[in-house]
Amino acid sequence: MKLTQAYIITIGDELLIGQTIDTNSAWIAQKLNAQGIHILRRVAVADEKAAIITALDEALAVADVVLITGGLGPTADDITKPLLCEYFGGKLVINERVLEHVKGIFSRRNRPFLDRNMAQAEVPDVATVLYNRMGTAPGMWFEKDGRVVIAMPGVPFEMEAIMEDEVLPRFKERYVTGAIVHRTTITAGEGESFIAEQIKDLEEALPSHIHLAYLPGPGIVKLRLTGHGNDQELLQKEVEQLQFVFAERIQHIVVALEDKSLEEILGAALLEQKLFAGLAESCTGGLIAHKLTNIHGSSNFFRGSVVCYLPPVKERLVGVPHELIEKHGVVSSEVAAAMATGARNSLGTDIGFGVTGVLSPSEDYPVPTGTVWMAVADKNRVVTKEFRFHYDRIRNKELAAQNGLLIMLRFLQNKL
Amino acid sequence: MKLTQAYIITIGDELLIGQTIDTNSAWIAQKLNAQGIHILRRVAVADEKAAIITALDEALAVADVVLITGGLGPTADDITKPLLCEYFGGKLVINERVLEHVKGIFSRRNRPFLDRNMAQAEVPDVATVLYNRMGTAPGMWFEKDGRVVIAMPGVPFEMEAIMEDEVLPRFKERYVTGAIVHRTTITAGEGESFIAEQIKDLEEALPSHIHLAYLPGPGIVKLRLTGHGNDQELLQKEVEQLQFVFAERIQHIVVALEDKSLEEILGAALLEQKLFAGLAESCTGGLIAHKLTNIHGSSNFFRGSVVCYLPPVKERLVGVPHELIEKHGVVSSEVAAAMATGARNSLGTDIGFGVTGVLSPSEDYPVPTGTVWMAVADKNRVVTKEFRFHYDRIRNKELAAQNGLLIMLRFLQNKL
Repeated sequence: MKLTQAYIITIGDELLIGQTIDTNSAWIAQKLNAQGIHILRRVAVADEKAAIITALDEALAVADVVLITGGLGPTADDITKPLLCEYFGGKLVINERVLEHVKGIFSRRNRPFLDRNMAQAEVPDVATVLYNRMGTAPGMWFEKDGRVVIAMPGVPFEMEAIMEDEVLPRFKERYVTGAIVHRTTITAGEGESFIAEQIKDLEEALPSHIHLAYLPGPGIVKLRLTGHGNDQELLQKEVEQLQFVFAERIQHIVVALEDKSLEEILGAALLEQKLFAGLAESCTGGLIAHKLTNIHGSSNFFRGSVVCYLPPVKERLVGVPHELIEKHGVVSSEVAAAMATGARNSLGTDIGFGVTGVLSPSEDYPVPTGTVWMAVADKNRVVTKEFRFHYDRIRNKELAAQNGLLIMLRFLQNKL
Repeated sequence: MKLTQAYIITIGDELLIGQTIDTNSAWIAQKLNAQGIHILRRVAVADEKAAIITALDEALAVADVVLITGGLGPTADDITKPLLCEYFGGKLVINERVLEHVKGIFSRRNRPFLDRNMAQAEVPDVATVLYNRMGTAPGMWFEKDGRVVIAMPGVPFEMEAIMEDEVLPRFKERYVTGAIVHRTTITAGEGESFIAEQIKDLEEALPSHIHLAYLPGPGIVKLRLTGHGNDQELLQKEVEQLQFVFAERIQHIVVALEDKSLEEILGAALLEQKLFAGLAESCTGGLIAHKLTNIHGSSNFFRGSVVCYLPPVKERLVGVPHELIEKHGVVSSEVAAAMATGARNSLGTDIGFGVTGVLSPSEDYPVPTGTVWMAVADKNRVVTKEFRFHYDRIRNKELAAQNGLLIMLRFLQNKL
């Protein structure tokens, strides 16, 4: 079966000068992929007529569906709407429903409705309007020779709302798609070459419609099996069985059999064991707490974190003895352990975690840059572990946070 | 003057199924732009020979420089190296310097050196090797008819190291570039249409070589002036003068005249006033602390944050009276104020900040979803402010964190 082919065009000078990171494409790709639509290509072009038209011509030559984001705002640098109107031979007319919606937004926010906002209610008469419940710029759906072109604003949550409310349901109806199944195994502890060596024979024996990819990330390597076929259910079974075979071979490093974040995996493990965690974060500066509280329902397994960035805060709020810091230094196994037990006590939790380290060059510490000590404690035991990270501050911080989540998980699994 | 034109190709199935967000392109674009090199286009394609070759052909037809990332790893899904070798008519040979480097990395990490890692030391004999101090896959520099093609690994910090060590210095020597100047003004408090209305005449009077763009972000709108010209110094002056004219017109909403993050701006303001801040974060869950501690040197203005996610933690560690929570509810002006003064006391800082709110639908609170109270305190006064955010949990959290940084900044500027 021939898959529906999609092409994503993102428009905006900010993408080409690197002022903005394109998160829209990844979001769109994920959603289309889940509906069995294949992405041929993603292209980012400037807010320039010629560049946009070239991209559109190229896309329509090869794709069934073209999704465009950006350039629909109310200011002079936004040229996508008149350009598409001309491209599809239409003219701009006020859409009453959009006008009412835009006026409603302004009045709810107590903002004056300006002439230029009137233009936001203009839509090409050859387009179907896609309602934008999150903002003022409507999405648009054009058709030409059986191919579809969709334009949406570049603001991520507005684009997401239009996709979910208007685009994806229409795609589901319109496109009979082939089956695509992804299964991701998350591993920690070994590099991708070493993993590849252990599963070489399995990888070579994969049938031609199933493909293995290695995705290294901070502290982990993801192994993704992707299968293409016609029967979703059969394919699902086939890929899942293969995933188990692979995972069994490398079970000592498998963290999870789903493509979830480490915080989601840890959260689920805490919930399952009916435990609460509390943290004392020094060098990670609140990043672990931030990750955990991104999860809806985290108040069922997470009580809080003391971001004790300076040593006196470790003493005052986590109860780390001053003498311990004096004797062993603030970046030490002993202080990490005292932070983990201190977090448990101060926050009143089952599991306590502590992390202390030096992430970027500093003369204040007698340990090498990148040295981080972590500890996990419950009522029976305290385990500490040393790490050494070799990158810059931001990356070392991310690595420390990921490894913090990992060692809490390993602790709960009795593997630490 | 004709600017050097660059084209960025990122390779990897993970980009087309949305498993990975492409941060490399933005990073590369920023660096090239700063050297006066113009980015024509960014394209993401799959790990497929035909797709890569098509992209390469298209890029070489229009660009002086093509930068490719991805597909250089040691596993079977990585096909970029042999493909480029064939494309440029070379053959793969072991490079002794790379081999030594790769072996060194494995031995330092106490990992066995595998046969498949030998392949990482193979380089096309028609390419110049670009040293990768951060990893095992070398970068490669090809030339064809005066055009340059550069291939680098997709792992961000490896790519960044190769760009900085090897690519950017060569570009600087090779390309006499035109001048590009960007000046960004950060505003908060008004939407882009409303700003546009106030500076309409200034925007219309801009000379043709200077362009204004509006970049709305969480809680802020950035206004970017971009000028193109020949003389860097003259252009710099011209764009800066224009920036001041624009900023004066809308001075009531200007937060900064530089493209910095709010945490950097706040950090600089605290440092300048020789003040330390301490936080009590409930609904932001550590995100504000995380942002502040991303800044190197944050220990000079930030002491810590109590992420008091559950109410008992607010009482125990921040000293919010139990009765206050009972009487006013945990999401209230009174509790926010008590958190701000409590954070000041518990953490021993000059400035205290508190934030409490409900970011996603929950039946535990008698206030509408999205309601957030914040407070800032110093020894003389406490100011509280209510917000209402209308999006999903993750976006509401980001908005709350950005607005938290903003109101601390406004407090320091005596504008709150």
